[in-house]
Amino acid sequence: MTLHDDALLIARRAIDAAMPDAAVRRALAAHRDFLNAPGRLILVAVGKAAWTMARAAWDEAAFDGGVIVTARGCAHGPVGNAAIIEAGHPIPDEMSILGAETALERVRGLTEHDRVLFLLSGGGSALFEKPLIAPDELARITEHLLRSGADIVAINTIRKRLSAVKGGRFALACRPARVLSLVLSDVLGDPLDMIASGPAAPDTSTSREALALAGRYALPLSDAARACLARETPKALDNVESEIIGSVSLLCASAADTARALGYEPLLLTDRLDCEAREAGAFLAAMAKTHAGRGRRAFILGGETVVHVRGRGLGGRNQELALAAAGGLNGLNAALMSVGSDGRDGPTDAAGGCVDGASLERCRAAGVDIAAALADNDAYHALDRIGALIRTGPTGTNVGDLTVLLIGG
Amino acid sequence: MTLHDDALLIARRAIDAAMPDAAVRRALAAHRDFLNAPGRLILVAVGKAAWTMARAAWDEAAFDGGVIVTARGCAHGPVGNAAIIEAGHPIPDEMSILGAETALERVRGLTEHDRVLFLLSGGGSALFEKPLIAPDELARITEHLLRSGADIVAINTIRKRLSAVKGGRFALACRPARVLSLVLSDVLGDPLDMIASGPAAPDTSTSREALALAGRYALPLSDAARACLARETPKALDNVESEIIGSVSLLCASAADTARALGYEPLLLTDRLDCEAREAGAFLAAMAKTHAGRGRRAFILGGETVVHVRGRGLGGRNQELALAAAGGLNGLNAALMSVGSDGRDGPTDAAGGCVDGASLERCRAAGVDIAAALADNDAYHALDRIGALIRTGPTGTNVGDLTVLLIGG
Repeated sequence: MTLHDDALLIARRAIDAAMPDAAVRRALAAHRDFLNAPGRLILVAVGKAAWTMARAAWDEAAFDGGVIVTARGCAHGPVGNAAIIEAGHPIPDEMSILGAETALERVRGLTEHDRVLFLLSGGGSALFEKPLIAPDELARITEHLLRSGADIVAINTIRKRLSAVKGGRFALACRPARVLSLVLSDVLGDPLDMIASGPAAPDTSTSREALALAGRYALPLSDAARACLARETPKALDNVESEIIGSVSLLCASAADTARALGYEPLLLTDRLDCEAREAGAFLAAMAKTHAGRGRRAFILGGETVVHVRGRGLGGRNQELALAAAGGLNGLNAALMSVGSDGRDGPTDAAGGCVDGASLERCRAAGVDIAAALADNDAYHALDRIGALIRTGPTGTNVGDLTVLLIGG
Repeated sequence: MTLHDDALLIARRAIDAAMPDAAVRRALAAHRDFLNAPGRLILVAVGKAAWTMARAAWDEAAFDGGVIVTARGCAHGPVGNAAIIEAGHPIPDEMSILGAETALERVRGLTEHDRVLFLLSGGGSALFEKPLIAPDELARITEHLLRSGADIVAINTIRKRLSAVKGGRFALACRPARVLSLVLSDVLGDPLDMIASGPAAPDTSTSREALALAGRYALPLSDAARACLARETPKALDNVESEIIGSVSLLCASAADTARALGYEPLLLTDRLDCEAREAGAFLAAMAKTHAGRGRRAFILGGETVVHVRGRGLGGRNQELALAAAGGLNGLNAALMSVGSDGRDGPTDAAGGCVDGASLERCRAAGVDIAAALADNDAYHALDRIGALIRTGPTGTNVGDLTVLLIGG
């Protein structure tokens, strides 16, 4: 096994462990009491992985009904007698509203003896929505915020208050039934109230903040919308138990396990990586120069780097990160692998890339100019020509990116 | 003691340990036999720290003569009866040639019973030069290479062959006397043949490479210059023993020692950091988010980051690195310190900066917009307003930058 092979094995096992169905089965095994208690049991699954998560859950208990709200093309057949609604993403549409209304209908009238298994994954913000104002006005407000340069936290602070299901309000609607919320996180740091805008999570933002933001960005608001901003979201939800069942942190933990089994001493550097992709590659190459020859180690990173596109080439953040490290790794007994857990890195058919101490020579032999490829954001073609792309196909999960620097010792 | 105080103490002790005089004394203590052997003992010190290094050495043995070649303003009085020559930097001048000629004169006619203590520090490439061609042609060739985008390795490969002292030729001129070469390194990775162009180091570049570069860059060469390129530099020097007595690696090792003494578990990430300064700051802030609350640790980095200046503000690479991390550190029990060992960071009176979990709030209170300051490359004023600059004054050494991320646990 070469370092390159080891890196690919670490990636494959980490992604396998982050698959939605595996994560749901693992989590439910620890919640048999919840599933088997007396009273009604309702399944509500929301997000891009909702169908896969729901199907895995359906076999584990006797549900009294269910609703699955997912993105178009993400449902692949019936799941028991659950309603399946495919809605718009990333822009919500009328099916998003139907999805939220159907779910609200299904949990209405539950008692304290009943339970809701709520399965949440990325994409839920758009797929699951019931606005408290006219959809047109909601769209106008969102557009105004985006044009004003408001960040995602500011946008969510406003939008949660204009929704009947976001910011903990879906869980509020389930009361007095108990809710077990199992969450596949696609947001760094796993903030429960940010993932899919937190339908079952206490909201950490306040009405006061929302009104201040409306003032700062000079939001044009109807009286109805202004009244919504003034209404507080739940700050505690005593009927909800939440658990992150898949995330970039778990991706990293799995990578560490596999690395250790392969004889590398693992060290998690960060599960919150968010800097420029190519600079992360340069940083890790500098680490490789120092650590090469000092024992087998695996430095593990999770997150989502960014690329400021200036060229016209083809690539993705994981591919740029890997290519940017190839020069620095030259001649070292080291490999650097970076991959998106969803199997799609940028607008390409690759999931990421893997380079090692021989990659620079391979580039030279193939006539690939790394600096020119990076300047044109063309990591895809450069890596493809030296056989350094990782292709997994769409994996069905999405919990961020995994980057691993292996030192051969 | 706060994390901030700890970080500053780590920096101060590391710089103290990298001071030229301390490094020379430490090294010579292990070389008493060389100093006290029979035969003549000559001191030759070259580089920006030459005077300080020579003065420290002079008290340790009975020298039969010496030459000190340093930059203007870096000599502060007589050192025994050694000749002191202050020459041009970064552009060599006639005093650089006088310096090299004086040193060559002093080591001429030595026997195998004699010894030369050669003390080398950064800046030696310009300060110590005896061209084998007319100085005018040498200047033209250098300018042509710079304009053609040749890197430092290519330029050195050419220039070593046009010099009577670079590329190991000074040590060759000392033969058959033995040479002990003590080197304060200002180049990442401590390549002996790159530091001050390696007057006493076997050259790793070849005549064949030099001639190929002359072709690639269409160098206009006189017959004399072409003949020089064809003449090989020494590939082995059996009369020389070399030792790196100060470097960014030793700076990092000292930082690790102090950190451990202060109760932090130290980990050297790299001593070769060379990526964009602000992205290194973002990378380290992402690490802080993951590691905060998981025990006292010190992540240690050495190197020399780069800044692509786009704004019109004031700052330096260490200041940009620190400021770029302030947002990510917000609220964490962590501190990030970055400092230049020479005490000068960019064109400022500061050596670097130190931020922690309270820096973002301090910026807000002081009306400092971090994003705007970074966009204008104005880290100096931003850090100054929150009291986060490190000011040491010129330290007298130059072994690169030290960056330390402290996690309070």
